[in-house]
Amino acid sequence: MTKINKAACIGGGVIGGGWIARFLLAGIDVDVYDPHPEAKRIVGEVLANAEKAYAMLTGAPLPPRGKLTFRDTLQAAVAGADWIQESVPERLDLKRNVLTQIDAAARPDTLIGSSTSGLLPTDLQRDMLHPERLFVAHPYNPVYLLPLVEIVGGEKTSAATIQAAMERLPPIGMKGVHIAKEIEAFVGDRLLEALWREALWLIKDDICTVETLDDVIRYSFGLRWAQMGLFQTYRIAGGEAGMRHFLAQFGPALQWNWTKLMDVVDLDDALVEKIGQQSDEQADGLSIRELERIRDENLVGILQSLKGSHGGKGWGAGKLLKDFEHQLWAAGGDKKETLDVTKPLRLIDTKVSPAWVDYNGHMTEHRYLQVFGDTSDALLRLIGVDLDYVERGHSYYTVETHIRHLGEAKLGQTIHSTAQILASDEKRLHVFHALHDSASGDVIATAEQMLLHVDAKAGRATAAPEEVLVKLRPLSAAHAVLTMPEGAGRHVGQKR
Amino acid sequence: MTKINKAACIGGGVIGGGWIARFLLAGIDVDVYDPHPEAKRIVGEVLANAEKAYAMLTGAPLPPRGKLTFRDTLQAAVAGADWIQESVPERLDLKRNVLTQIDAAARPDTLIGSSTSGLLPTDLQRDMLHPERLFVAHPYNPVYLLPLVEIVGGEKTSAATIQAAMERLPPIGMKGVHIAKEIEAFVGDRLLEALWREALWLIKDDICTVETLDDVIRYSFGLRWAQMGLFQTYRIAGGEAGMRHFLAQFGPALQWNWTKLMDVVDLDDALVEKIGQQSDEQADGLSIRELERIRDENLVGILQSLKGSHGGKGWGAGKLLKDFEHQLWAAGGDKKETLDVTKPLRLIDTKVSPAWVDYNGHMTEHRYLQVFGDTSDALLRLIGVDLDYVERGHSYYTVETHIRHLGEAKLGQTIHSTAQILASDEKRLHVFHALHDSASGDVIATAEQMLLHVDAKAGRATAAPEEVLVKLRPLSAAHAVLTMPEGAGRHVGQKR
Repeated sequence: MTKINKAACIGGGVIGGGWIARFLLAGIDVDVYDPHPEAKRIVGEVLANAEKAYAMLTGAPLPPRGKLTFRDTLQAAVAGADWIQESVPERLDLKRNVLTQIDAAARPDTLIGSSTSGLLPTDLQRDMLHPERLFVAHPYNPVYLLPLVEIVGGEKTSAATIQAAMERLPPIGMKGVHIAKEIEAFVGDRLLEALWREALWLIKDDICTVETLDDVIRYSFGLRWAQMGLFQTYRIAGGEAGMRHFLAQFGPALQWNWTKLMDVVDLDDALVEKIGQQSDEQADGLSIRELERIRDENLVGILQSLKGSHGGKGWGAGKLLKDFEHQLWAAGGDKKETLDVTKPLRLIDTKVSPAWVDYNGHMTEHRYLQVFGDTSDALLRLIGVDLDYVERGHSYYTVETHIRHLGEAKLGQTIHSTAQILASDEKRLHVFHALHDSASGDVIATAEQMLLHVDAKAGRATAAPEEVLVKLRPLSAAHAVLTMPEGAGRHVGQKR
Repeated sequence: MTKINKAACIGGGVIGGGWIARFLLAGIDVDVYDPHPEAKRIVGEVLANAEKAYAMLTGAPLPPRGKLTFRDTLQAAVAGADWIQESVPERLDLKRNVLTQIDAAARPDTLIGSSTSGLLPTDLQRDMLHPERLFVAHPYNPVYLLPLVEIVGGEKTSAATIQAAMERLPPIGMKGVHIAKEIEAFVGDRLLEALWREALWLIKDDICTVETLDDVIRYSFGLRWAQMGLFQTYRIAGGEAGMRHFLAQFGPALQWNWTKLMDVVDLDDALVEKIGQQSDEQADGLSIRELERIRDENLVGILQSLKGSHGGKGWGAGKLLKDFEHQLWAAGGDKKETLDVTKPLRLIDTKVSPAWVDYNGHMTEHRYLQVFGDTSDALLRLIGVDLDYVERGHSYYTVETHIRHLGEAKLGQTIHSTAQILASDEKRLHVFHALHDSASGDVIATAEQMLLHVDAKAGRATAAPEEVLVKLRPLSAAHAVLTMPEGAGRHVGQKR
């Protein structure tokens, strides 16, 4: 079993809140202990952002949200948990004290992760009775969108613990990366700290402003690093001559005076004020909330684009998202049990994502067909035509579509689609979809579609097998008694 | 005038080739001088990659490609150029010598950019007669996709030169960032060098492998940096308390032993071999060419997703792409002069992009409608309904679409669309589009659409103004004599 049944979060700030969101949105109940008077508000804000982001990120059906409970004591929060995540402030004495309390209160087989960004797990586990289940699980902000978790064990951490931690992350949409040896700040923060120290010198010495420095990153190597890291990028730069040749060329630069890093910048009041002022100018009036919203939109778009890359197979963080969605679909998110077949089937519930709208915030024409296509896909899954079925060589192809636009969908609007089967036989599936505003139920658009069952390799229509037809017939029969929807059977420009 | 009429490239390796591609694809003639025997092959390969990437990157019409000429002498190449880009190997004596020759042969008002990644412009311009027009224009690989150019002046560089250089980059799809003070390696490479030195230590000390290190980057801060840089990201991390508070918290870490950067790693044979081996494993059998293709697909997808972000306004490199496309459209790429109105109008020429295909490499259903929507948009521009017209408050909205799928479009396939006007009056525009395989001319799909002229604010149909109708009527009259296309007027499921 690699799925977490119940999680506990000790500490609920921005990082703890991000963990809470990951667990809840994956359907896992979470108990929280955080004595901070503002804890509920902060967690609530992070959770609201995370829910918005997830709604844009994936059209796959999320499981019912886990139950969130704030507890009055650490002991009550950790009871019964099989993953406990500690995210208290970054002080060794405080973390050790909290971890010792967790250790005493939790079942001995419970996994205990620390969100520390720099402390050594060996130091953290020193006073624990069951230190073998303590590890560093260091995430990155925003935790609900960035998938990375650095997994680092201490001297007493067991190999089984590391393996268990790694296995439990994909089901919550995250990626564990195991760091082989413990070292202060691990890998990510060491790299960040090196770049950060150099950046501070560039600002202090007036080489550039913070805005210029950020532009240098995001118009160049930031784009590279979103999809391949440092070494893979340099492997390409080395070309056919290879990585070893590239290193030989790059070597001499290591002796050049190309960084200030033999010296540490003094972050005095003057430098703090300079950066503060430049940062205010760069923000250009955008509040932190607005910047967060823009950042999340951007990250969602990047993750989605990487999901579609590499010939549709997905790449890096996009591949991870694709796999995560595959799990969500496989988990039966189609909510089959709640479907009422005596009326058009409600199949897709979504929100109009930023990637779907034009300059004016209206949903772009072809995105309507995307939702209708997703609706047909969801209907097909109900009769057993899923990814596995398609990979075995057969599928339904759309041969004809008639769309009518009756209203407009706008950015962020909650929408859902319904599907009515008009007719079917062993080859044909004739359906009528409607896209609704979820608040009012009003129909925004309709699509009438004809689908044909095909042998994909032979490239021709063929009868669907009995395993499919046996599921299709009862649905089709249930819909046969429904009224023909207004708008069905029309051609373009037909008078009402 | 901020557009370059003729460019010269001295040195045509991977970086020079990238510049050549940027110029040519923006419609600018380029003369090249490079005595390297393989220069034509290398430039040809970069250009082929760049053309593939541009075809995926934008549906906007590219101008006719500029003329590429290889010259036998530096003097012949620079004659008549108004931007000369030097991209010879990174040695001060060599670059000074080449720049002195360029200086002597070029018109005194010609802009001269150097692609150096580290040398000071003051050192480069020392022996020039007209040093005021020399500047560093440092791009990033792949130059045809990453928009950044660091613009750095030396002691003798004029302010007018810097301004002129900055203005001439957006028309070729690039972004100049002016670095205020010259310093070795400027800003980008200083940041990269700091991170690189730290990364080498992490590999040498066996903290992680190159693959783990790359994963740490691309599953976390790489995604952040593709859209906001370092300081804007930390501004958000600081939350409502602000940047100054964030710095106060971060300050103490500067004194911690969190980097190895007080020391320089020895890139000896053992370390080179270790990295080489780990890099081979990471590549997992993918060749450099395959990695390049994947990288370019990823970058295209990221740039496109950022173009659609921020409520459709675009963000960062995506905003730049949006502006670039705006220019391309405004430049009249619709090829009005070549349109033959006595038959269906050929309006969109494109290729099936990686972002458009499903797992099997087939164009996704809704992308057909995207191409048909683009076809309607192109038709509307012909009658004066362009972005400016829409921003003034009126537009045509699609109210009905009927799509028939007759074949399949596959990844990389060259396709084009044609549009026939079936009927029109002052409010209505009834069109019939066909999507063709460009090699065979075969029809892959058709779309019949009804569009209505609307007052967008009032949200209702209204007669189009005379300025639009006066352009629509002759097109409509010319098409009135054409045969009604097979498939028009049909409803879904209609017998043949």
